[in-house]
Amino acid sequence: MAVVAVLGAGAMGSALTTPAVTTNKVRLWGTWLDDEILTELRAGRPHPRTKVQVDQGVELLDSAALAQAMDGAEVVVLAISSDGVLEVLGRAAPHLRPGTIVPFVTKGFGRDEQGRVQLLPGLLERALPPELGGRCPFVAIGGPCKANEVGAGRPTATVYASRDAAVAGQVADLFATGAYRIEVSDDMEGVEISAAMKNVYAIGLGVCDGLAEGGGEPWHDLKSAVFTQAVTEMRRLAAVLGGREATVVGLAGTGDLEVTGLSGRNKLYGVRIGRGEPAGEALAAMARAGQTVEGAPAARLARELAAQRAAELPPGSLPLLAAVNDILDGAPDPAGLLAEAALPARRQTRAPRTLA
Amino acid sequence: MAVVAVLGAGAMGSALTTPAVTTNKVRLWGTWLDDEILTELRAGRPHPRTKVQVDQGVELLDSAALAQAMDGAEVVVLAISSDGVLEVLGRAAPHLRPGTIVPFVTKGFGRDEQGRVQLLPGLLERALPPELGGRCPFVAIGGPCKANEVGAGRPTATVYASRDAAVAGQVADLFATGAYRIEVSDDMEGVEISAAMKNVYAIGLGVCDGLAEGGGEPWHDLKSAVFTQAVTEMRRLAAVLGGREATVVGLAGTGDLEVTGLSGRNKLYGVRIGRGEPAGEALAAMARAGQTVEGAPAARLARELAAQRAAELPPGSLPLLAAVNDILDGAPDPAGLLAEAALPARRQTRAPRTLA
Repeated sequence: MAVVAVLGAGAMGSALTTPAVTTNKVRLWGTWLDDEILTELRAGRPHPRTKVQVDQGVELLDSAALAQAMDGAEVVVLAISSDGVLEVLGRAAPHLRPGTIVPFVTKGFGRDEQGRVQLLPGLLERALPPELGGRCPFVAIGGPCKANEVGAGRPTATVYASRDAAVAGQVADLFATGAYRIEVSDDMEGVEISAAMKNVYAIGLGVCDGLAEGGGEPWHDLKSAVFTQAVTEMRRLAAVLGGREATVVGLAGTGDLEVTGLSGRNKLYGVRIGRGEPAGEALAAMARAGQTVEGAPAARLARELAAQRAAELPPGSLPLLAAVNDILDGAPDPAGLLAEAALPARRQTRAPRTLA
Repeated sequence: MAVVAVLGAGAMGSALTTPAVTTNKVRLWGTWLDDEILTELRAGRPHPRTKVQVDQGVELLDSAALAQAMDGAEVVVLAISSDGVLEVLGRAAPHLRPGTIVPFVTKGFGRDEQGRVQLLPGLLERALPPELGGRCPFVAIGGPCKANEVGAGRPTATVYASRDAAVAGQVADLFATGAYRIEVSDDMEGVEISAAMKNVYAIGLGVCDGLAEGGGEPWHDLKSAVFTQAVTEMRRLAAVLGGREATVVGLAGTGDLEVTGLSGRNKLYGVRIGRGEPAGEALAAMARAGQTVEGAPAARLARELAAQRAAELPPGSLPLLAAVNDILDGAPDPAGLLAEAALPARRQTRAPRTLA
């Protein structure tokens, strides 16, 4: 039993209160963008995105009440999107005490002071004030978790990773329930690479589904080849960026890629492209509808990150990442691009055929 | 360019003629069970199962014409289900010559003379007459290939594995096209374990889809956890049975599991169970409709195979295989069984909760 502050009342922040509140005192703090959500929750109505009601035992606090949310919190969960997480961590930092554990569900990449693309764990660690440096351990939360299912209490496997696995284990002991099961790991980089990249590759999986919807015939073989190539490229990235391939092969990589290919905005964006909508127009239309496609900026940042590590990731070593970027750039024939990136090379010396 | 005999005019046998005929002289021989199929194909109508027309350049031969089909064939593809493949190989053997290459698409396990469960490659090799022993190399064909898509020429990644990878490479050079791409491997056991087990685990994936259909809410988190656990168990089996984990993580395992979880009879059988139909009744209904569910007998044989290797695979090491067997036996609460098998263990000492 602990005092837990969840910062961010979006889909995953609110969903995590379902397992957390079963044994802890839980506060859900909404950012300045979450006012409408808090209004709904305070009225006892379901969360607008997950359609799940938050447990009545969860204390709801709005953006002005950050100090109150943080007061005495032993665990502070960052449930903020990647573009806002450093801002919120900065505001929360004055209220952090040494020993406070900071799990985060944020996925994606960021930039350091020199403008170089970096994985999130390092950026978060460097964002703490010097007196807290290394004294507020972070815990990366990954794995195949849809917020609506976590919120509704359906069976879910997740991964909690911290530099010292014992810290992740402490949080796991606080949050786990019969339905919400937690694998503990010390591979924060592997979890974060998987979490960020699966959104990128899910766009490719969605394209295959869109081809099927558009043409009336399944493209399951291509979808499965893209899936496998995505796992291969995430393993390659993990090996270079300080993560472990085993993390990618497990729940954090393969599992999260599977769930992200089943539903969600990244997959749906790919579906629109596969059905024939120009990539730029589809992204703009989703943005107008308030639908963020995290995989699109992540694809650009991942390409840049790979270029920063060109010695270990020479051009051609991540062909599916390149294909997704080309598709986002509006290149014609997304099916052909995915096939060339995901299918084995032709061994024959005969002239290549046009793909069906 | 070679003379190729495909034995078996079912879905995959007929589909393989699409890539093979682009550069080879191809004969499609139907077994005594394929007469109706040949009638359709001879009339220029689509294959009853794949809905794809066979290329006019493919010579169609019925069961009485086995000698003619085999005459001068340099490659003889076994496209026979696991319960008939040894019978057909026995009939074909008198027409085999040393050096003939024998690819096979058969998936599953078999029994040796002592009644012990064995992987298919060893059984096929031992079924050759002594004078051909070791002189007709086999090539296991696996990976994420739906027959209807291979037949229609949509992009497909497949794996060809033989003891000497150069032999698989020879066949790959004959069969590959721009759309049908072949990865060459020397891991026959890894390919066959994957090919057989993915049918078993696809039943579990289907159960998750059926739960969603029955209840109107997604069970994507559970499906993804089951998917990941299936890969883990296939890796474990491969490590013990002489295959390589890398094969399981690649196209033959992860890729084939993905495609098998998207459609097909094994998944559909799971869907029926997940919707609430008793497992035995659902299997009987599918059998009456002529729909073989290969994963059901494979689950039993895999359990027996694991028991034969209990020193390396002690009870509890393949919990998802056990859960699928329990579900096939009609155990109540398939969702709870899958969750207990696929989710991480609870680390807490509190009493376990009932799963949602």
